[in-house]
Amino acid sequence: MKTDRDTRTLRVELGERSYPIYIGPGLIDQASIYRQHIPGQQVMVVTNETIAPLYLDRVLTALKGYQTESVILPDGEHHKTLSIWNQIFDALLNSQFNRQCSLVALGGGVIGDMAGFAAACYQRGVHLIQIPTTLLSQVDSSVGGKTGVNHLAGKNMIGAFYQPRCVIADTQTLNTLDDRQLAAGMAEIIKYGLIDDVAFFEWLESAMDRLLARDPVSLSEAIERSCRDKAILVAADEREAGSRALLNLGHTFGHAIETGLGYGAWLHGEAVAVGICMAADLSRRLGWLSGTEMDRTLKLIQQAGLPLNPPEELERERFLSLMSVDKKVLSGRLRLVLLKGIGRSLVTEDFDSAALISTLDEYGRNSL
Amino acid sequence: MKTDRDTRTLRVELGERSYPIYIGPGLIDQASIYRQHIPGQQVMVVTNETIAPLYLDRVLTALKGYQTESVILPDGEHHKTLSIWNQIFDALLNSQFNRQCSLVALGGGVIGDMAGFAAACYQRGVHLIQIPTTLLSQVDSSVGGKTGVNHLAGKNMIGAFYQPRCVIADTQTLNTLDDRQLAAGMAEIIKYGLIDDVAFFEWLESAMDRLLARDPVSLSEAIERSCRDKAILVAADEREAGSRALLNLGHTFGHAIETGLGYGAWLHGEAVAVGICMAADLSRRLGWLSGTEMDRTLKLIQQAGLPLNPPEELERERFLSLMSVDKKVLSGRLRLVLLKGIGRSLVTEDFDSAALISTLDEYGRNSL
Repeated sequence: MKTDRDTRTLRVELGERSYPIYIGPGLIDQASIYRQHIPGQQVMVVTNETIAPLYLDRVLTALKGYQTESVILPDGEHHKTLSIWNQIFDALLNSQFNRQCSLVALGGGVIGDMAGFAAACYQRGVHLIQIPTTLLSQVDSSVGGKTGVNHLAGKNMIGAFYQPRCVIADTQTLNTLDDRQLAAGMAEIIKYGLIDDVAFFEWLESAMDRLLARDPVSLSEAIERSCRDKAILVAADEREAGSRALLNLGHTFGHAIETGLGYGAWLHGEAVAVGICMAADLSRRLGWLSGTEMDRTLKLIQQAGLPLNPPEELERERFLSLMSVDKKVLSGRLRLVLLKGIGRSLVTEDFDSAALISTLDEYGRNSL
Repeated sequence: MKTDRDTRTLRVELGERSYPIYIGPGLIDQASIYRQHIPGQQVMVVTNETIAPLYLDRVLTALKGYQTESVILPDGEHHKTLSIWNQIFDALLNSQFNRQCSLVALGGGVIGDMAGFAAACYQRGVHLIQIPTTLLSQVDSSVGGKTGVNHLAGKNMIGAFYQPRCVIADTQTLNTLDDRQLAAGMAEIIKYGLIDDVAFFEWLESAMDRLLARDPVSLSEAIERSCRDKAILVAADEREAGSRALLNLGHTFGHAIETGLGYGAWLHGEAVAVGICMAADLSRRLGWLSGTEMDRTLKLIQQAGLPLNPPEELERERFLSLMSVDKKVLSGRLRLVLLKGIGRSLVTEDFDSAALISTLDEYGRNSL
């Protein structure tokens, strides 16, 4: 039996849209958390066919006393479409749910995105509780309010900024995650240290083995610090007009890898890990990051069990083309998040294109 | 050639989401209005196959200098679906429109709802200009920020509150509207007088003939006063938690008529007109509205060329069932907007059910 002593609470400050993130083991069973944040009577749990057998009954049990319904969507990024999204509305309307209802998103990033976007749009906005069940979604989707679905022509092209009433990050749900998924979450965690939190980066260097062994106290610590770091950036820039772009460290390179391989071949976190290595390499070539700092970055990524190199298929020209900005790159207009040190990131268009070409060549060679 | 002297400007005050409504003849040709409110370079005009041949070229001409594209949707409420809505995203992505783009909604309420909802969701929110081309949309959709699409199981079930950067209400576009559509818009205009503006109601009694003759000065006056009255209610209650419900005067009865006949058989404004008559009748039975005031209300509706009675198919029991609240009605829990005088409306659950039954019987008889 877990006690409240194990629960950490972090508040995301967004004025009247502020909300708490609860972090700890066994939280999905705690009826009192739901009761604090669900104002109406009707609750729709949105989950997928992988997560439902594991956790749906426990969540419904904790929600006893409410009028509960659930909708189970197919699992996977390629189901993040308008037509699957519409199944949530079918369920809400079949059950005659009103404007005072709440949606509970129980699953990873895809479920959080789709259920969150449905909550934003059902009758022009109802209550939302997020229960992220992967490490990636606990440290990423928990903060920022990004929701949406994919369009055939692009990822996350249709969506909304919509804040939940609370996030419940139950560290026990990570026990059912496979090692590869766990490592993918670590890529985003390492990213927060690199962006602006050198103390967190140093803590990760010492704690990585415990994290991979799924020590619950270490996981709670890592999740809390990640969410806190992200919350500071988001609070300063809720609608992503400026500083929030720092969160894209590793993502421009990573996005090219994901697109080049076809979505699903690599996990998002794996592509971001290589993207961080490339951003570090470019930063070193520009003289902004020391060799020692680059090595520490690569070592931590390797220690997390993440790849350090892009797949061999991606040569320089293909990379440039996938970044959709080949012309802009040559005129120095590509905006990248780079490093002036561990914990000192910046968004910049002002770098030597030759250094970028060298990084792409280097990583092209490495990958052979 | 029209001059700026003919243009009225009304500001809807919603803090950082405040915007102007421009009202007058020939405004869709005025490039300067677009230039003031379109910050980026890319502009997508969303319209339908009825409106496109009439006004699309003129709008595109006024937008010369921008990168303009257009998407022409099928006309009609039954096309207000997720799949037709997705055609707007197809067009935006085919043209590689970015997050700084603007959408221009050129058409009636359906186009305004769909294009507005697309603007709310494309890349999580882009700029929106509304050009309503029907009297109903000029006095209704211009203010309030309601956008959305229908679900098979209910109207406007999926949507967002999203404010435009400006509304351009060109009174000349009303010249291509048929008489029935014009009258349907009058029902909403009369509604504003009844809710809280007795002076406007009295003005309408004297101006109705000029309005039906499409006198541009009178139309501008009626549109401005309607939008101003609605803006006051919306500003006090942007997300429809309370006082904004007064705007539903006539709509609970009207909704039952629309649903009972099947959408499209009667125009929304026609159903609202009868709904207002029924609300007035019920208010009189409750002793809240004098016989003289009820007669003035009915006379003005009749003068506008609107129906005073529901179609004969709708008997009392059918009405109650269509209001989806038969049980609630009998326990006195139905919330209705009623009148304590012309210009003195209230939202209430506190009325004698017997009076409601009498109203339904009365209007059932009248319709035979």
